[in-house]
Amino acid sequence: MFRNNYDNDSVTFSPQGRIFQVEYAAEAVKQGSVVVGIASKTHVVLVAIKRNAEELSSYQKKLFQIDEHVGIAIAGLTSDARVLSNFMKQQCLGHRLTYGRNMPVRSLVDMIGSKAQINTQHYGKRPYGVGLLVAGADENGPHLFEFQPSGMTEEMVAFAIGARSQMARTYLEKNLDAFADCGREELVRHGLKALKESLVQDKELTVENTSVAIVGVAKAKDGTTKMEPFKVFDGQDVNAWIGGAADDKEAAAAEGMDVDDA
Amino acid sequence: MFRNNYDNDSVTFSPQGRIFQVEYAAEAVKQGSVVVGIASKTHVVLVAIKRNAEELSSYQKKLFQIDEHVGIAIAGLTSDARVLSNFMKQQCLGHRLTYGRNMPVRSLVDMIGSKAQINTQHYGKRPYGVGLLVAGADENGPHLFEFQPSGMTEEMVAFAIGARSQMARTYLEKNLDAFADCGREELVRHGLKALKESLVQDKELTVENTSVAIVGVAKAKDGTTKMEPFKVFDGQDVNAWIGGAADDKEAAAAEGMDVDDA
Amino acid sequence: MFRNNYDNDSVTFSPQGRIFQVEYAAEAVKQGSVVVGIASKTHVVLVAIKRNAEELSSYQKKLFQIDEHVGIAIAGLTSDARVLSNFMKQQCLGHRLTYGRNMPVRSLVDMIGSKAQINTQHYGKRPYGVGLLVAGADENGPHLFEFQPSGMTEEMVAFAIGARSQMARTYLEKNLDAFADCGREELVRHGLKALKESLVQDKELTVENTSVAIVGVAKAKDGTTKMEPFKVFDGQDVNAWIGGAADDKEAAAAEGMDVDDA
Amino acid sequence: MFRNNYDNDSVTFSPQGRIFQVEYAAEAVKQGSVVVGIASKTHVVLVAIKRNAEELSSYQKKLFQIDEHVGIAIAGLTSDARVLSNFMKQQCLGHRLTYGRNMPVRSLVDMIGSKAQINTQHYGKRPYGVGLLVAGADENGPHLFEFQPSGMTEEMVAFAIGARSQMARTYLEKNLDAFADCGREELVRHGLKALKESLVQDKELTVENTSVAIVGVAKAKDGTTKMEPFKVFDGQDVNAWIGGAADDKEAAAAEGMDVDDA
Amino acid sequence: MFRNNYDNDSVTFSPQGRIFQVEYAAEAVKQGSVVVGIASKTHVVLVAIKRNAEELSSYQKKLFQIDEHVGIAIAGLTSDARVLSNFMKQQCLGHRLTYGRNMPVRSLVDMIGSKAQINTQHYGKRPYGVGLLVAGADENGPHLFEFQPSGMTEEMVAFAIGARSQMARTYLEKNLDAFADCGREELVRHGLKALKESLVQDKELTVENTSVAIVGVAKAKDGTTKMEPFKVFDGQDVNAWIGGAADDKEAAAAEGMDVDDA
Amino acid sequence: MFRNNYDNDSVTFSPQGRIFQVEYAAEAVKQGSVVVGIASKTHVVLVAIKRNAEELSSYQKKLFQIDEHVGIAIAGLTSDARVLSNFMKQQCLGHRLTYGRNMPVRSLVDMIGSKAQINTQHYGKRPYGVGLLVAGADENGPHLFEFQPSGMTEEMVAFAIGARSQMARTYLEKNLDAFADCGREELVRHGLKALKESLVQDKELTVENTSVAIVGVAKAKDGTTKMEPFKVFDGQDVNAWIGGAADDKEAAAAEGMDVDDA
Amino acid sequence: MFRNNYDNDSVTFSPQGRIFQVEYAAEAVKQGSVVVGIASKTHVVLVAIKRNAEELSSYQKKLFQIDEHVGIAIAGLTSDARVLSNFMKQQCLGHRLTYGRNMPVRSLVDMIGSKAQINTQHYGKRPYGVGLLVAGADENGPHLFEFQPSGMTEEMVAFAIGARSQMARTYLEKNLDAFADCGREELVRHGLKALKESLVQDKELTVENTSVAIVGVAKAKDGTTKMEPFKVFDGQDVNAWIGGAADDKEAAAAEGMDVDDA
Repeated sequence: MFRNNYDNDSVTFSPQGRIFQVEYAAEAVKQGSVVVGIASKTHVVLVAIKRNAEELSSYQKKLFQIDEHVGIAIAGLTSDARVLSNFMKQQCLGHRLTYGRNMPVRSLVDMIGSKAQINTQHYGKRPYGVGLLVAGADENGPHLFEFQPSGMTEEMVAFAIGARSQMARTYLEKNLDAFADCGREELVRHGLKALKESLVQDKELTVENTSVAIVGVAKAKDGTTKMEPFKVFDGQDVNAWIGGAADDKEAAAAEGMDVDDA
Repeated sequence: MFRNNYDNDSVTFSPQGRIFQVEYAAEAVKQGSVVVGIASKTHVVLVAIKRNAEELSSYQKKLFQIDEHVGIAIAGLTSDARVLSNFMKQQCLGHRLTYGRNMPVRSLVDMIGSKAQINTQHYGKRPYGVGLLVAGADENGPHLFEFQPSGMTEEMVAFAIGARSQMARTYLEKNLDAFADCGREELVRHGLKALKESLVQDKELTVENTSVAIVGVAKAKDGTTKMEPFKVFDGQDVNAWIGGAADDKEAAAAEGMDVDDA
Repeated sequence: MFRNNYDNDSVTFSPQGRIFQVEYAAEAVKQGSVVVGIASKTHVVLVAIKRNAEELSSYQKKLFQIDEHVGIAIAGLTSDARVLSNFMKQQCLGHRLTYGRNMPVRSLVDMIGSKAQINTQHYGKRPYGVGLLVAGADENGPHLFEFQPSGMTEEMVAFAIGARSQMARTYLEKNLDAFADCGREELVRHGLKALKESLVQDKELTVENTSVAIVGVAKAKDGTTKMEPFKVFDGQDVNAWIGGAADDKEAAAAEGMDVDDA
Repeated sequence: MFRNNYDNDSVTFSPQGRIFQVEYAAEAVKQGSVVVGIASKTHVVLVAIKRNAEELSSYQKKLFQIDEHVGIAIAGLTSDARVLSNFMKQQCLGHRLTYGRNMPVRSLVDMIGSKAQINTQHYGKRPYGVGLLVAGADENGPHLFEFQPSGMTEEMVAFAIGARSQMARTYLEKNLDAFADCGREELVRHGLKALKESLVQDKELTVENTSVAIVGVAKAKDGTTKMEPFKVFDGQDVNAWIGGAADDKEAAAAEGMDVDDA
Repeated sequence: MFRNNYDNDSVTFSPQGRIFQVEYAAEAVKQGSVVVGIASKTHVVLVAIKRNAEELSSYQKKLFQIDEHVGIAIAGLTSDARVLSNFMKQQCLGHRLTYGRNMPVRSLVDMIGSKAQINTQHYGKRPYGVGLLVAGADENGPHLFEFQPSGMTEEMVAFAIGARSQMARTYLEKNLDAFADCGREELVRHGLKALKESLVQDKELTVENTSVAIVGVAKAKDGTTKMEPFKVFDGQDVNAWIGGAADDKEAAAAEGMDVDDA
Repeated sequence: MFRNNYDNDSVTFSPQGRIFQVEYAAEAVKQGSVVVGIASKTHVVLVAIKRNAEELSSYQKKLFQIDEHVGIAIAGLTSDARVLSNFMKQQCLGHRLTYGRNMPVRSLVDMIGSKAQINTQHYGKRPYGVGLLVAGADENGPHLFEFQPSGMTEEMVAFAIGARSQMARTYLEKNLDAFADCGREELVRHGLKALKESLVQDKELTVENTSVAIVGVAKAKDGTTKMEPFKVFDGQDVNAWIGGAADDKEAAAAEGMDVDDA
Repeated sequence: MFRNNYDNDSVTFSPQGRIFQVEYAAEAVKQGSVVVGIASKTHVVLVAIKRNAEELSSYQKKLFQIDEHVGIAIAGLTSDARVLSNFMKQQCLGHRLTYGRNMPVRSLVDMIGSKAQINTQHYGKRPYGVGLLVAGADENGPHLFEFQPSGMTEEMVAFAIGARSQMARTYLEKNLDAFADCGREELVRHGLKALKESLVQDKELTVENTSVAIVGVAKAKDGTTKMEPFKVFDGQDVNAWIGGAADDKEAAAAEGMDVDDA
C-alpha cells in the first residue's frame, strides 16, 4: 500500500523518465490468462488458455475474429479489449468500403497503437489495460503483431503475453528457427506446447479450456495463392490438436485448401 | 476507514494493474438482494427476492421487461439500473424501427458493456454500481448474460448475483447439467431452490417477496416455433411455484402455448 | 470533524460499494420538516408541518402544485426543490402540449429520478439535497411516490420523510391496511395523526403550521369518474381537519363533487 | 484557521447533509451593513444604513431601482449584487417587451433564486455572497421578498438582513401586527426605528448615512388604483423622516398622489 | 509562509464569509506606486508618481487615455491594467459607433466592474491585480471612480490608491470641502500635494517622476460648455506645476479654453 | 526543495499580492545567455552571446528577424520564444496584408504583451519562460522594447536581459546619455562592451559566440529617410566589430546607405 | 521515491525557473538505445543500435523514413515517436500537394518543435518522451537537426542521443572538422565508430543490431545535382559497413549515382 510518487496519472514522468501508470497497465496484461502466437511463412496461429473463472459460463472467449483476414488474442481487461476490438472491426470495414480490399495488417495495428498512445498522454483517461496479439494475413503474407498498453506495437515471429507467459516465451525462443517453415498443423502444436509451459502445475490443456485460431496464406497446387480466413476453434474442434495426432495435410484439406508446406 | 492508495478514481491503475474503483462498484452489486437466472434449451427464467426495505412501499421491483423478447434482473443501485434499462429500451426500439425485427440479445448486451466501459476509463464519471442478468430469446434461441460494472459481459448457463449469491451459485453448479433439458416449470423451480439457498436463516420465499420472469422460444406441436414473450410474475401469480405443485403443461397452456419439452 | 475517506464526491465508491455523498444528501432530507403522504383507492393526501424558521415570513411552503393532477411535498433544501419543481412543471406542460392529456404520474417520477441520478455519477455536481413525496392521479388511479436524492423512486401506499419521520412511518405501518378504503376526509385525518407523531413534545398542529393537499379520482353518483385536482389547503382551510369534526360528505360537496366512499 | 472538512466547495455535502460553502456565503451577508424592509397592504419600504467605509466617496449605495415597480436593498458583496441587479433589470425589461406589462414580483424573485441555486450545485463557481430584500408592487399588491445566497427566497411581512440585523428583526417581530394597516409614512418610521436598533452604540441616523426607498400601490380618492413607483431617497430627502415629524398626507401629496390610508 | 486555509482560489468562502484571494489581489494594488485623483465641479485631475524601476526605460506610464473624454491611473500589475485598458477602449469605441456619442463614464465603469467580478466567482481565473482611478467627463459633468480587484466601483470626490496611499488620502480628507470649487490648476496642485505626502522620505517630485492628467468640462465666457479632452502631461509639461507658480488662466489659455472658475 | 505556498499556479495570489509562478518564469529568463539592446536616434542594435551548450551544433541562434523592420533577441526557453516569434511574424504579415504598411513596433509589442498576460491569469497554462528585447523601426523612428514573462512591455533606451545581465545594465546606465547621438557602428561597439561586462571571467567575445543585429532609420544625404532593414550578423560578419576597428561610414556604405550621424 | 516539489506537471515553474517535467521527459530519451547522426556537405547519415528487448521480434525499428527526402532516428518512447512520425508524414504530404515540392527540412522541424512545445505549456498533457535526429536534404543541401522533448530544435553537424550517447558525442567532437568533406561511405564509418563508443562492454555491432540510413544531395559528373533519397539499411545490407571494407565509389554506384566527393 506504499504510495509511489509520480504514479498517479499517465501524464506525469518520474524523474527517471518513466510513466508508471503505463507500466501498471502492463501489469493488468500479466493478470490475464496466457495467449501464444506464432507465425510461419504461410500461417499465423493463436492459442489461448480459457480461464474458468465461473463454472457457470458457457465459455470465456480469448480469441476474436476482427475481419476475414485478421483476428486477435487478448490478455487483460476484457472490457477494454472489446473497445479495441470494435474499433478494429470498424477500421477494417471502413477500409474495405473505401478501397475495396482488406486493410493491411500493419496499418490496422498502427491505428490501435496510435489510439492507445492518446490515453497515455492526456489527463483524465487511462491506458488500455489489455495486451493483444494480432494475427493476420495480407498481400505481404502472414503477420503477427504484439500490442502493448503503451501503444507500442511490434511485429514478432512468435510471442506470448499474459500470466506466466515468460515460460511460453522461453519455449518459443528455443524453437524460434523452426517456425518459419512449419506447416499449419505443426505451428498449432508448437503453440500448444508453448502454452503448456505456462500452465500452473497439475493443470492440463483440455477441449474445454483451449482455444486455437488460424489464419493463413497458402500456396495452392496450381501455383495460385489462397487465403485461409481467420477462424477460431473451440471445444471438440481442438480435440485432435490436444490429442496430438492430427495430420497436417488432412486437416488442411478439411479447410478446403491444398497446401504444399509439408 | 483506511485509505487505500490508487483507489480514488477509475482512471488509475494500482501497481498490480488493478482498478479499485471498478472493484468497489462490484461491491455495490453484492449489496443488492439476490437474483438468479437459468437458461435451458427453450427458456430463460429469472427469479428474485424483493427486499422489503420499506414496509410501506407497494412493491420493490427487481425484474424489468426491456422489450418483448428480453428483460433484466438487477442487483445494486436501483437508480443506475434505471439508466441502463432506459438505454436498453431505446436500443431495442431503435433496432426494431431500423431493421424491422428484435435486436439480437448479444448485440444488446454488447452495447451496455461498451457503455459501461466508458465509465471505467474517463475521469469524472464512476462505474455503474449495478449488476444485471439479461434474459432474452432471439433467433439463436434463449440467452442468459451477466453484466458487471466493469463492462464485462458473459453468456452463462445459470448464474446468481447479489447478496449471498455464492450459495445460489453453488446450487446452480451442482445442477448445471440438468438445466439444458429442463422444461419451463422445472427451470423456475430450480431457480427458486437456488434463490432459497441465498436467503438468511428463518427467511422464507413468499408471494410478497418473490418475483419470477420467463422468456422462451418454445416448439409448438405443429413443429413451428413460437416465442413466449418476457413476462414478470409477482404476488399471487407466483403462488403455485412457491407452493411447488404446478403442472408444467397446464401452466404453459395457460400461457397459450403447446410445449413438448416434458 | 473526522474526515471519512471516499466521501468527497459522488463519483467515488467506498471499498464497500457505497457512495457517501449520496448518503449525506439523504441527511439533508432528514433535516427538513416532516411531510406525510397516504394513498387510498380514490385519493392521495399530503400533509406537512410548516417550520416557523422566521416569524416574519408570511408563510413557508411545503406543498406545491406541479400540474392539475399532481403535486409534491418537499423535505430538505428548498432551493433544490424549486429546481426539480420547475423541471416537473415543464415536463407536464410539454406532455400536455404534445399528447393532449396529463402526463402519467409514473413517467413524471421516472424523469426526475433519471435527472437526479446524473448528479450522482458525474464529477462537479452534487446530488439534490431534497426528498419528495409525489402525489398524483391519472387514468390508472391515484399514486403516491417517494423520490430520494439518489434518484431512486418508489411507489408507496403511505410514507413520511423529513425530521423525526420515523415516528410517522410507524403510525402509518400500523394502519397500513386501513388506507385503501379510506374516504378523502379520513385519509387527511390519518395523515394528520401520523404527522403529530413526529412533532417534538409540546408542539401542536395549528392552522398556522399545518398544510394539507389532496388529489383524487372520485366516482360520482351517476357512475362516471371525476378528478379532484391537486389542491393545497392552508390557514383557516385546514381548521376543520385540525379540529377533527369535519364531515366527509359536506367537505366533498364544498369541492363540488359527489362521493360515495362513506 | 482550523480547517473544517467538507467545506471546500459547494458541491460537497457534510456527513450531516450541510453545504458549508453556502453557509459561509451567508456569513458574507452578515458583514454587509444592515437593511430593513416592511410591507403594508399598500406599500413596501426599504431603509438602509450607508456604511462610510471611505470618507472620500460621494455616496455608497445600498438601495437600487430594478424597474419602475421593483427595487432591492443589498447586504454583502457589492460586486455580486451588481451581477444580480443587472440580471433582474434584463429580466424585467425582457418581460415588458414580451408581455407589455410589468413582471410579477414573485416571478422575478424566482428567477434570481434559480440562478443562485446553480452556483450551489456546480463545481467551479461559488454562491453569491449577497443577500437581498426585494420590494415591489404588482397587480397582486405590494410584496417584500428575502433572497439568500442558497437561492432560497421567501415572502416576508417585514425583515432585516446584514450586520447586527437580529436587533432590527426583534423590533419588527414585536410590531408585526401593526404593519399591515400602516400608511406610507408610518411604515418608513417603523423601518427607521428598526434600523436604529441595529446601530452600534453612539451611532445615529443622519441624512448622510440613511437611505429610504418606497414602492406602493395606493388607492386614490376616486376609487381607482395608482402605483407609486419605486424611488430611492437620499440626503436631504430623508431629513423629514429622520427628524420624525413628517406628515403623511403632505409627503404623499409631494409625490403627487392622494392617499386615504390615514 | 504559513498557509492560510480557504485562500487558494476565489471561489471559496472562508467560514467568516471572506474571499481571501480577492483580498490578496488588493494587496497587489498596494504594491503599485501611488496615484491620486480629485474631482471638482468642472475638472478631474489624476497625478501619479512614476517608479524608476529601471533607469534605462524611457518612461514608465501610470496614466493612460482611454477615450477622448476618459482616462485612467493604474496601481498594481501593469499587464492586468493593459487588459482592462484595451477592454475600455473597445467599449468606448463601440459605444460611439453605435450611439454617436461618448460613453457615459458610469456605464464604462460598470462594465469593467462586471468583467472583474466574473474573475472572482469562477474557478480557473484570478482577480485582476490592479486598481484604477477612472477620470472622465460626460454630459453629467466630471466624474472620478475607483475600481477595485473585487469588481467594486465607487464614485469618489477624491481618492488615492497604491503604495503608502493612506497618507495621500489623509491629505485629501482634510481638504475635501475645498475641491468642488477648485479651478483646474488648483486641483492639480492639490493632487501634487497629496502625492507628496505618500512619497518616502528624501524623495521629491521631479519632471522625470511625475505625471499629470486632466479632463474637464469648462464653461466658456459666452455661457456655452466646452469639454477639455483627457490629456496626460509628462516631463517638461509638468514643470510649471512642480515649480508651483503656474497661473491658472494662462495655463488654461494654453489649452485654448476660457475658464471662469478662478 | 522547500515548498513555498501560493506558488503552484499563476492564478493564485500570495497574501502579499504576488504571483510567484510569474516570478519563477522570470527566473527562466535569467538562465538564458545575455542579450543587450541599445537605441539611438537612428538605429537600434541587438548584441548577443551565443552559448555553446553543444559543441556539435552549427549555431545556436539568439537573434531573429520577425519582419523587415523588426527583430528580437531572446533569453530563456527557446521553444517558448519560437511560439512568440511565430505569433509576431503572423501579426506583422497580417498587418501588411490588411493595411499595406509595416506594423508599428509598439502595436506589435502590445500584442505579445496581451497574449502573454493571458497565461498569467488562466488555470492550466504557464507564463512564457522567455524574455525578449524587441528592436524595430517605424515611422516614429527606432524603438527598443523589453518584454517580460508577466506580459509587461516597456520601451527602453538600452537594456540587457539574461544571465549576469546586471553587469551589462550597469555599463549601459553609465553611458546612457551618449546613446541618443551614437552612430550605427558606435552603438554596436557600446553593445559589445556591455555584453563583455556580463561574460564570466576568461571568456572572450569571438566570431563564433557573438551575434549582432541592426535595424535603423537613417537620414540620407539628400534629406530623405531610408530604412535599414533588420539584419543579423554572425560569424565573420562580426569580426570587424569584435576587432574593434570598423569605420562607421564604410560599414554603412557596405549596407548601401549614406549616413550623416558621424 | 523522494518527491521533488514543482515537478508534478509541465505548467509549473520551479523557483529557479525550471520545468521539471520537461527535464524528466528528457530522461526518457536517455533510456532509449543510442542513435548517431552526422552531416557532411553532401550527405547525412543516421546510425542506430537496435536493442534486442525481445528475442522474438522480427526487428525493432529505430530509423524511419518520413518522406522521400527526410527521415528520423528515435530514442525514447516508441509510441510517442509514432505520433510525431505520423504528424511529419502528413505535413510533408500536405506540403507537396500544396506547393508541388518537398517541404524544406527546417520548416518540418519547426513544426514538430511547435507541436511539442504546446505539451509543455498546457495542463493535462505531457511532453513527448522521445528525442529525434532528423536527417534530410533540400535545396539548401543536407541537414541534421536534433529535436528535444522541450520542443527545442537545433541544427547540428553531428550528434548522438540516447543511452550512453555522451561517449558517441565525444568521438564526434574530436572528429568534427573532418565531417564536412567526408564522402558518403566515410560518413557511415564515422557514425558506426561513434556508435561503438556508446556500446556497453563486450557488445559488438552486428548485422542484427545495426541500422544505417542515408540521405544526400550528390553532384553528378555532368555537374547537375541529384538527390539520394532517404533509405534505411538493415541486416545484410549493413554488413559491408560493419566489416569495414566498403569502397565509397562502388557503394555509391550501387545506388545509381556518381559521386565526386572522394
